[in-house]
Amino acid sequence: MRTALTELLGIDHPLVGFNRSPGVVTEVSKAGGLGVLAATAYTPDELDAQLTWIEQQVGGRPYGVDLLVPEKVAAGDPADLIASLRAQIPAEHQAFVDSLLEKYGIPEAQDTTVAPGGGRDEIMASINSDGADALLDVVFSHPIALIANALGTPPPHLVAQAKTAGIVVAALVGQAKHAVRQLEVGVDVLIAQGTEAGGHTGTVATTVLTPEIVDLAGDKPVLAAGGIASGRQMAAALALGASGVWCGSVWLSSNEDITPLVVKEKFLDASSADTVRSPLRTGKPARQLRSSYHDEWERPGSPSPLPMPLQLMLANEAWNRIDAAAADGNDGARALESFFIGQVVGSFGRLRPAGEIAAEIVADCERRLIELGALAATATGAAR
Amino acid sequence: MRTALTELLGIDHPLVGFNRSPGVVTEVSKAGGLGVLAATAYTPDELDAQLTWIEQQVGGRPYGVDLLVPEKVAAGDPADLIASLRAQIPAEHQAFVDSLLEKYGIPEAQDTTVAPGGGRDEIMASINSDGADALLDVVFSHPIALIANALGTPPPHLVAQAKTAGIVVAALVGQAKHAVRQLEVGVDVLIAQGTEAGGHTGTVATTVLTPEIVDLAGDKPVLAAGGIASGRQMAAALALGASGVWCGSVWLSSNEDITPLVVKEKFLDASSADTVRSPLRTGKPARQLRSSYHDEWERPGSPSPLPMPLQLMLANEAWNRIDAAAADGNDGARALESFFIGQVVGSFGRLRPAGEIAAEIVADCERRLIELGALAATATGAAR
Repeated sequence: MRTALTELLGIDHPLVGFNRSPGVVTEVSKAGGLGVLAATAYTPDELDAQLTWIEQQVGGRPYGVDLLVPEKVAAGDPADLIASLRAQIPAEHQAFVDSLLEKYGIPEAQDTTVAPGGGRDEIMASINSDGADALLDVVFSHPIALIANALGTPPPHLVAQAKTAGIVVAALVGQAKHAVRQLEVGVDVLIAQGTEAGGHTGTVATTVLTPEIVDLAGDKPVLAAGGIASGRQMAAALALGASGVWCGSVWLSSNEDITPLVVKEKFLDASSADTVRSPLRTGKPARQLRSSYHDEWERPGSPSPLPMPLQLMLANEAWNRIDAAAADGNDGARALESFFIGQVVGSFGRLRPAGEIAAEIVADCERRLIELGALAATATGAAR
Repeated sequence: MRTALTELLGIDHPLVGFNRSPGVVTEVSKAGGLGVLAATAYTPDELDAQLTWIEQQVGGRPYGVDLLVPEKVAAGDPADLIASLRAQIPAEHQAFVDSLLEKYGIPEAQDTTVAPGGGRDEIMASINSDGADALLDVVFSHPIALIANALGTPPPHLVAQAKTAGIVVAALVGQAKHAVRQLEVGVDVLIAQGTEAGGHTGTVATTVLTPEIVDLAGDKPVLAAGGIASGRQMAAALALGASGVWCGSVWLSSNEDITPLVVKEKFLDASSADTVRSPLRTGKPARQLRSSYHDEWERPGSPSPLPMPLQLMLANEAWNRIDAAAADGNDGARALESFFIGQVVGSFGRLRPAGEIAAEIVADCERRLIELGALAATATGAAR
């Protein structure tokens, strides 16, 4: 399909695949879409290596990067940000998490080395602008086609540098008023992300948000995000006026995704009603699989979640221990396990190659569009 | 457009319009869709008169009725249900509501006669099965084409009586597991209602819920509900696999809708982010316009909402006073005013004739389907 997005990026299909796994990004780009790497989970050196690897795989096809560049720097001592943030976590909260983990039989951390994408403090600190700038320097040293900012408006220097380099700037929005601000700072592509999406998201659903953003964006392409994991849903997004789709959750049903297998197995068992939009993981509302972790935090008497990034730092220590224990077959850890995921989790049937998922979404979408054209031919002529 | 729904009901367009205003129901049916009257707001005598009036207007075109027939009867003394339910409202809750109304300068009720659709206890009590049965008797004495049940599965006698009379039975569902139960009791049409819908609704969005229900329903038609107020959104619903759409909220932007003008004016000013899914109006989660009423109930120290029907009885007394005061230009009442509405409220531009709204949705949908067919022709052939 030829849309404003495929023309802008020089891709075959208006399908963007967002994921933190280089293998997924590669497969989406190879399938004729645009793979976009979630860069925030990596240190600058790791990110450099991942982007180099992606370029070796995609054979010149375009790919992109998603960052979380903060508008406001976390309120800590810039000279020793991690320690100063850590000192802001109340003892009550630390004690609650410790007792929660003890209750579920989660062992103490054995090893501070965690897998790529895990929750080290250094990475948490990338949500201050110095850390984000170090990642940005790496990103701009690679031939990326698109850079997206996940929270808030991108800083002016990001937009300026991208424009100079001919890189498309995209931004996620959950409300019309946010889209107005993004257009003012010069964003090229808006991603209308509905409440059904995984990760940080707002309250307005894709059916309602997408046409609102399309009407605001003028001739700039809009992607629909949230609730899109099939060709039918991609066709619906195009019906709503989007020039393409931004899919995140569906790749967590792919073989290439680096999420722990125990979590992916929980996803395969989940229904669409099993997610929750909650601040308990990061401090800001983010959609994730509901688990015993949420039940415990939501009990009367449990502490209220901290603001970002404190809740994120507190929770990530817990998740590192939970992930390690779950990998060892610990039942309590399996009960607690969770990760960011959208409501499409209910449609996951089995783990499959990411390239197969991408090809099926596109083929089913094209078939559905043909069917919709045929349906129009049965109309009684109200449109003419 | 010819779909399984238009064939089943003998209508021109797969557009169902749900509303409590006979004038809206009439206009939707006259426009070639199916108007469905929300019957629960009426006494049996009123309902009989409304249905007779609708029949006089629609000239033989089909129309339908929506009831709220409870699976479980409210736990009160059947001999004196209203008084026995009223006695279950805690003094703390009554005192909270009284002080809330006093704070906003809402006068005592002057008159127990309220407008049709208002909140008399007799009508609240229709959510016990005796009250619902009296409405059902009226409904079955009229030549309706469809009967829908809004909460839970319809009782077996309703399904049996409808089948005998050749009346299509429809039911709203918010989760796949509810659809399974509806199919088991013999429902003919499933309405997949996403979280973005107004009124009682679940948490799963229309983009995700609709294809799930379509896959479960086999050859039974599925309507998409929630987030549909335009031709683009109707086309998206058809892309998701629906055989038509069930629109509720959009009619509250029509001239014929009987909602107080002060509320309709608040709707015109609202954005899609201004609704809330809350149990504060009825005791069950229902999407409505957020107002000072919700701010007050959600303050620390405010009582928790009561179960249905107690919260409904408590709140309706308040709403009757608020509606009366708002009509008199009371500023506090305007701040509190609210009503059930979906996220599409953000798209309301002005009050218009319901027939014009219906015709525009259908015409825009047909035009969009033609455009989607043309888009398919630009495909690179993945579907072939």
